[in-house]
Amino acid sequence: MKKNPSKQKVINAASSLFYQKGFSGTSVRDIADKASVNVSLISYYFKSKQGLLEYAVTQYYEAYLKRMEEVWSQMEEGSSLDRLKQLVFEIIKYKQEHHQFSCFIHRELSLDSVFVREMAVTYLAKENYLISNAFQEALKSHRRKGLDAVFILLQLKGMLVTPYVMQNEWKDKVVGDYSHDVFVKKYVKTVHQWLDFLMAEKQAELKE
Amino acid sequence: MKKNPSKQKVINAASSLFYQKGFSGTSVRDIADKASVNVSLISYYFKSKQGLLEYAVTQYYEAYLKRMEEVWSQMEEGSSLDRLKQLVFEIIKYKQEHHQFSCFIHRELSLDSVFVREMAVTYLAKENYLISNAFQEALKSHRRKGLDAVFILLQLKGMLVTPYVMQNEWKDKVVGDYSHDVFVKKYVKTVHQWLDFLMAEKQAELKE
Repeated sequence: MKKNPSKQKVINAASSLFYQKGFSGTSVRDIADKASVNVSLISYYFKSKQGLLEYAVTQYYEAYLKRMEEVWSQMEEGSSLDRLKQLVFEIIKYKQEHHQFSCFIHRELSLDSVFVREMAVTYLAKENYLISNAFQEALKSHRRKGLDAVFILLQLKGMLVTPYVMQNEWKDKVVGDYSHDVFVKKYVKTVHQWLDFLMAEKQAELKE
Repeated sequence: MKKNPSKQKVINAASSLFYQKGFSGTSVRDIADKASVNVSLISYYFKSKQGLLEYAVTQYYEAYLKRMEEVWSQMEEGSSLDRLKQLVFEIIKYKQEHHQFSCFIHRELSLDSVFVREMAVTYLAKENYLISNAFQEALKSHRRKGLDAVFILLQLKGMLVTPYVMQNEWKDKVVGDYSHDVFVKKYVKTVHQWLDFLMAEKQAELKE
C-alpha cells in the first residue's frame, strides 16, 4: 500500500468504479481515465482487469484476516460472548474503513463464478472458521432454547454484510448522518443487542 | 406470463444468466443461445438488454407489491406484531418462489446507476412504505427499550434480503437441504424470534 503510489492510485480508482458500476460494468479504459494513467501501465502492473481484481481482493482479505486473527489471539479475558462481540466490532470496523471495497466484494460474492469459488475455498473459508468458532464457543455457554444454530449463524453473518450489500438504503437513511466511527458504534450495538437476545443474557438478568 | 411462451422463455433464460453472471456480464447473444431463439427476436420484444431488464423487473415488482398489498389489506385480526410477522412470511415466500431473480435484483440494487435510482423512487419506495408502516405499528405497542428504531428497521430489511444476497453461503449450508417451503418456514421462524425479542414479547412472558 505504501511503496508504489501510482499502483495504489490505480487500485483506488478501480475500487471506486467497481463499487459504482460493478466489475463487469467497468472497463480498463475507465480505470485508466479515473486514475489518470495510461492503459498500458495497468497491463504492466496487473496484466488484466481480472489481475487487478485479484490483487485488490488479496490485499483486502489478507489485511482483514490478519487483523481478525491478531484481535482474536490478543483477547484473553472476558466471557466467550464478550469475545464474540469484540470480533463483531472489529469486523464491522474493518469493513467500514474499506467501505467501497466491502460493498463491491460482497456484491461480487453473490455471483456464480470461478473467482467466487476460489474465494470460497480460501479467504471465505478462513473467515468462516473464525466467526463460526467464536460463535459456537459463545453458544455453548449461553444458548437460548429453540434457536436453530445453523440459521442464527447465517443470520449473524448476514448482519455483518447488510450495511454493505444494502448500501444505498443505509446511505440514504443512516450512514450519511454519521462519521464512520459513530456508525460503527451504533450499528455494532444493535448486533450486540441481538446477540444478547440469542445468548439469553437478558433472560438471565430478568430472572434474577 | 402466460400469453407468450417464447417471450417468457427469453425472460427465464435472462433471469438465469443474470443470476449467475450479473447483468453486465451477460450478453444478448448469451440470452438468445440459452433460450434457443434468434437475437433479433429479443430486439423485437424488448429493444435491448436494458429493455429486457426493465420488463422483467417490472413483472417481478408489480406482482410482488400486488401480493403484499392484498395480503396486508386482508389481514384484519391479530395484533400489530402478528400482522408484521405475516407480512414477513409473505415477503420471504415470494422471494423464495422467485429465487434466482431475487438474488439478481438485490445484487443489482447495490450498484449506483440510473436504473437503481429509478427503482428507488418507484417500487422500492412502495415496498419501504409497506414494511415501515407494519413495523412502526408493531413497535408502537410492543417496543423494547434501548433500541434505535431506524437501525432495527434496516436490520429487519437486511433479514429480508440476506438469503438472496448471500445466496452462495445459504445454498452451501442450508437451502440445498430443504424444499423452498420448508426453507421459508424455518427461515421465517428465526426472523419471528428476532421480532419477538425486539417487541419484548419474551420479556413480558418472563415477567408474568
